[in-house]
Amino acid sequence: MAQRYRVAAIPGDGIGKEVVPEGLRCLRAAADTYGFALDVEEFGFASADYWVRHGRMMPEDWRDVLGGFDAIFFGAVGWPEAVPDHVSLWGSLLRMRRDFDQYVNLRPVRLLRGVRSPLRDHRPGDIDFYVVRENTEGEYSSIGGRIFEGTERETVLQETVMTRVGVDRVLRYAFELADARPRRRLTWATKSNGISISMPYWDERAGEMALRYPRVRADKDHIDILAAKFVLRPEQYDVVVASNLFGDILSDLGPACTGTIGVAPSANINPDRRYPSLFEPVHGSAPDIAGLGVADPVGQIWSGAMMLEHLGESAAAAAVVAAIESVLEEHPEVRTPDLGGDATTVALGSAIARRITA
Amino acid sequence: MAQRYRVAAIPGDGIGKEVVPEGLRCLRAAADTYGFALDVEEFGFASADYWVRHGRMMPEDWRDVLGGFDAIFFGAVGWPEAVPDHVSLWGSLLRMRRDFDQYVNLRPVRLLRGVRSPLRDHRPGDIDFYVVRENTEGEYSSIGGRIFEGTERETVLQETVMTRVGVDRVLRYAFELADARPRRRLTWATKSNGISISMPYWDERAGEMALRYPRVRADKDHIDILAAKFVLRPEQYDVVVASNLFGDILSDLGPACTGTIGVAPSANINPDRRYPSLFEPVHGSAPDIAGLGVADPVGQIWSGAMMLEHLGESAAAAAVVAAIESVLEEHPEVRTPDLGGDATTVALGSAIARRITA
Ligand SMILES: CC(C)[C@H](C(=O)O)[C@@H](O)C(=O)O
Ligand SMILES: CC(C)[C@H](C(=O)O)[C@@H](O)C(=O)O
Repeated sequence: MAQRYRVAAIPGDGIGKEVVPEGLRCLRAAADTYGFALDVEEFGFASADYWVRHGRMMPEDWRDVLGGFDAIFFGAVGWPEAVPDHVSLWGSLLRMRRDFDQYVNLRPVRLLRGVRSPLRDHRPGDIDFYVVRENTEGEYSSIGGRIFEGTERETVLQETVMTRVGVDRVLRYAFELADARPRRRLTWATKSNGISISMPYWDERAGEMALRYPRVRADKDHIDILAAKFVLRPEQYDVVVASNLFGDILSDLGPACTGTIGVAPSANINPDRRYPSLFEPVHGSAPDIAGLGVADPVGQIWSGAMMLEHLGESAAAAAVVAAIESVLEEHPEVRTPDLGGDATTVALGSAIARRITA
Repeated sequence: MAQRYRVAAIPGDGIGKEVVPEGLRCLRAAADTYGFALDVEEFGFASADYWVRHGRMMPEDWRDVLGGFDAIFFGAVGWPEAVPDHVSLWGSLLRMRRDFDQYVNLRPVRLLRGVRSPLRDHRPGDIDFYVVRENTEGEYSSIGGRIFEGTERETVLQETVMTRVGVDRVLRYAFELADARPRRRLTWATKSNGISISMPYWDERAGEMALRYPRVRADKDHIDILAAKFVLRPEQYDVVVASNLFGDILSDLGPACTGTIGVAPSANINPDRRYPSLFEPVHGSAPDIAGLGVADPVGQIWSGAMMLEHLGESAAAAAVVAAIESVLEEHPEVRTPDLGGDATTVALGSAIARRITA
């Protein structure tokens, strides 16, 4: 009997609603071709619409609602006209990452065939690395507050929180990943020269972890120079592990260096599989182009491939990525505006889906 | 009688010792040509050498020693082999920035004639903006600590501290700067969707300040997408104002997009002139190339131009910048390795100095 997977699809806001259907189209094509079944249930929460109707971002029992799924296929959240971003995000995506203990945010950065890098002198294959982002603590703490409000003495504090458990487990994941790749290189992002307490701790734990992986060549780079080197020498990176904030920055910057953040996927992984993992494009809800039908669906589709990989359907996952690259290379007429074309989201999504079944 | 300025020169560590002499060479050329006098006194502290001899980075009375100068001309500090970076930096540069209340760190990002951008399709003049970095508080707080040390429960906290006074004054500086530029555009860097207490506060103050500058078109960008846009559309920026950490990242990333961080200058300014301001290149001590005599001196020389501007010698300042651009454009034979050549620090510095007097 065919393997069945239960997937919760959450389009969310903005272009999330446009790209999730294309992601599902490609996932269904992969399921048909590779002989497994996807039971997809769609949810309207984690959106401004839901907020407007219910005064909250998700139902109170969202953990029960989502907890039984094998994976969450997520679009994007954020509609600042209706609800401030920190309210919508902490009420949905950031909450899921933390409560479902998706402590690894895995974000491939790869220059695809058919995509033009804004950097000179770089060809497909040249840039190919992973950003491994800590996804539950660090700078995204939500702890802090304000004193002397409204006066000249007004002062705001926000804590960065790093725990040994939290730091070690994401470092271990990154070192394992590096150890399994041909180049076996790892770079940890830091800022221990300026951020003088949390970042030296991060360095200390990374240095300790490096001792357990003698085959991995591990170095640190301060975030400022690391960002600069993403532009100047991106080919030198293999696995880059970073705190929550630094990982956030690097995983938008990296994809920009490969042409567009529209293609970048991500996997919010709970490695021990107690909770469902969540797969979403890096790009966000993009209010500026929402509703125009021209959003790039590749980030969503590629996130679908990462989901298939996570579910154990590696052949199907590889086929989806291969279909993305072939279509981008061979069919310039279905490129969306961010890729230099003028095609629609549906045109590009459909072309990739057809290619998967071909 | 000729105007005299008292300048404290602090080469510091690594390539700081190689580029400061070239900076001084050009400053002297400018003084000779424009008819003012520089009394330069050189100091060996704020270096690993000093640390090794004295067990501290600066003499106890450093405030008195430096307080009477009109400006500080600084190289770079950091020599991790001898002293951990957070110790050396917090014992010198970061200390001076805070204690001398140099609350604006002004960092021009400009694609110079004669320098090749790693970005396709960009020509000199296309990229020309300022990063205004908050320089005394924010994420660089040095407040926090560790609990349950050495156990599985080990937890590290570090505070971000924002004060109304601190935030407003740097925003005001940035809005004033934008208001005086032809395009009158300002972008404030934020991350209020994820960093949910300090960054919404930063947004709130920036929004408030924007009301007082109706002629300035002001917008916010989240740091992740802002970093991406530096690569994808750098030409759209005019004045970018950012917190201490975000400003640090953007002011390395911006110069990378203009070819090399070797040319990037900075001014650590105490706008009310109670204390001396400090002028230093963005690049740092660069242990990997220190001692080879091939460091790019342009960042140091251009920092000297910013110092002259601050001292009121605008014509001389403009002449130094013009000399840099002419030499880079017309004399490829004196380009240092980061600029694609094989010349020495001294060759490039001397060529620029000659051009100033020509
Ligand atoms: C050396 C380091 C502490 C410093 C900083 O982060 O401020 C440097 O990167 C800079 O930008 O001046
Ligand atoms: C929307 C925002 C809170 C989020 C983050 O910062 O994590 C996004 O930028 C991302 O990278 O997934």
